Amino acid sequence: MDAINNNDAVDEVNSFFESAPLLKDANSINAKLTQFINQKSSLSGSEGPKRVVCVTSGGTTVPLEQRCVRYIDNFSSGHRGATSCEYFLKSGYSVIFLYRRGTCQPYCRSLPDDPLLECFELTDDSCIKVHESHSEAVKKAISGHHAAVSGGFLLKLPFTTIFEYLQMLRLIATSMKTLGPSAMFYLAAAVSDFYVPWESMAVHKIQSASGPLDMRLAQVPKMLSVLRNQWAPSAFCVSFKLETDTEILLEKAGNALKRYKMHAVVANELSTRKEVVILVTNSEKVSVYRENDHSDVESPLIKLLIEKHTSYIAVIKE
Amino acid sequence: MDAINNNDAVDEVNSFFESAPLLKDANSINAKLTQFINQKSSLSGSEGPKRVVCVTSGGTTVPLEQRCVRYIDNFSSGHRGATSCEYFLKSGYSVIFLYRRGTCQPYCRSLPDDPLLECFELTDDSCIKVHESHSEAVKKAISGHHAAVSGGFLLKLPFTTIFEYLQMLRLIATSMKTLGPSAMFYLAAAVSDFYVPWESMAVHKIQSASGPLDMRLAQVPKMLSVLRNQWAPSAFCVSFKLETDTEILLEKAGNALKRYKMHAVVANELSTRKEVVILVTNSEKVSVYRENDHSDVESPLIKLLIEKHTSYIAVIKE
Repeated sequence: MDAINNNDAVDEVNSFFESAPLLKDANSINAKLTQFINQKSSLSGSEGPKRVVCVTSGGTTVPLEQRCVRYIDNFSSGHRGATSCEYFLKSGYSVIFLYRRGTCQPYCRSLPDDPLLECFELTDDSCIKVHESHSEAVKKAISGHHAAVSGGFLLKLPFTTIFEYLQMLRLIATSMKTLGPSAMFYLAAAVSDFYVPWESMAVHKIQSASGPLDMRLAQVPKMLSVLRNQWAPSAFCVSFKLETDTEILLEKAGNALKRYKMHAVVANELSTRKEVVILVTNSEKVSVYRENDHSDVESPLIKLLIEKHTSYIAVIKE
Repeated sequence: MDAINNNDAVDEVNSFFESAPLLKDANSINAKLTQFINQKSSLSGSEGPKRVVCVTSGGTTVPLEQRCVRYIDNFSSGHRGATSCEYFLKSGYSVIFLYRRGTCQPYCRSLPDDPLLECFELTDDSCIKVHESHSEAVKKAISGHHAAVSGGFLLKLPFTTIFEYLQMLRLIATSMKTLGPSAMFYLAAAVSDFYVPWESMAVHKIQSASGPLDMRLAQVPKMLSVLRNQWAPSAFCVSFKLETDTEILLEKAGNALKRYKMHAVVANELSTRKEVVILVTNSEKVSVYRENDHSDVESPLIKLLIEKHTSYIAVIKE
């Protein structure tokens, strides 16, 4: 029964990819990935290759028209992914940051929305100057970001649509296979559940003259199960559940853990997600709180996940 | 017959606003507007109050859930609006820039996507330095922007949803009434044609377990006609038509001109919109081209529109 379901899932996934518009720059993305991963897998320590986490962040879009004017978007500032990225880097992980274009970037959280226009001014002799009040935040952003990128610890890859996201995730997972259990997936992106299959999509802009618009959206195939079973079978996998209704949150997180064989699911409720998350694993449900109003819930969360990743690597090696 | 249609339109508009979630910060927005407009209307020259244009820019979103996780978005970088804003300011207009959060800002067009991370570096003694290659673009952005804002020539007001956009446009139009024909509306924002009425919207996140998603979206009432007839009856009004299909573009632009009594409609085709637009008025259709590959189509477009605005003011005064 499971085998049949699995075959169905694989068929759905294949047909999603076959009908998706081809990923631009696939070759250049692959080259970057290969270089990044090769460097890590050659740096083996006592436990095996160096640890690498793929952090996904931000929401995916679903185009409603092939020449895209309108699309459905999933809300996500990317704050969770960007913050988590910083804590992984701080703990010695290398990070592949698969993020939605325009969302929050690592080390940039304490900056205003429009940093260039709000943090800088021109002096009388036409030099660029940072406002005193933003000086520390700007320095942290520039130095943290440059150190991570130029040191080869952070590879940033942007996406916009669900089609780009899933094709890039597949490329990353396939590249990370050589890392075995040293690889982690931390899937914080808000991925669309519904989409319009490319071939059934309107080519031109949908016209508004003829009354209300009826739309039928298909379900996006459940990629977590393919990621876990085929793309990256030895990696440590963490997925996220966001709900606005607490009642169904834990039930859905538990279902995701079992159905997709995740190693951990981070359950978060929209209104309290910056203060507390619940880490659901096979053995327990742990509420993880931020230490105080000025600290991040990602700090204890990443610490706990790294402990679990360490145990996972140890068990696999036995 | 026209009167009946008009009443229907007014009913639709009223019911849209009554059911829309209340605009946050309406008081503070109003205060900013009043201050900005009062300053302009006191600066009367020979032709009347100083000219002010409201430039709208970027796409509006349509929430699909009240506690918004998913929404429908209209594609628009905001490049047209931001560029036009610069040319209006250069020509002596004051500008109210009603823009979608996160879209392109005036004077920032030649910057990379993520200016802070791509244009700056830290020196060895931990000072912030601009990369030579971006130095001019960064200076232009900071100085141009600051001069316009602190000189009181540019008021920036951000929106996200269709509900915010239309409520803010109404506030602006009402404030600008005192300017009479010196007011211009340059409606470059990509406004959603369809929306989900707030009261029929799901309160919680739509669940994906139960197969495909069927959605029915209602038409957004045609606000252009209310803007023109009620909110700002003496202002010079320019609207935009964007289509992916050239065949229907001019027909639709002509219809918009007549139906909503616009003074001009800028027709643009998605793939060529940076090179050429067609300005449709009651008397003519003029193709407006950019001068060369390095110049903006907005430069001749704004020049032409300002000429038409000048004639309009002169005729009204007669």
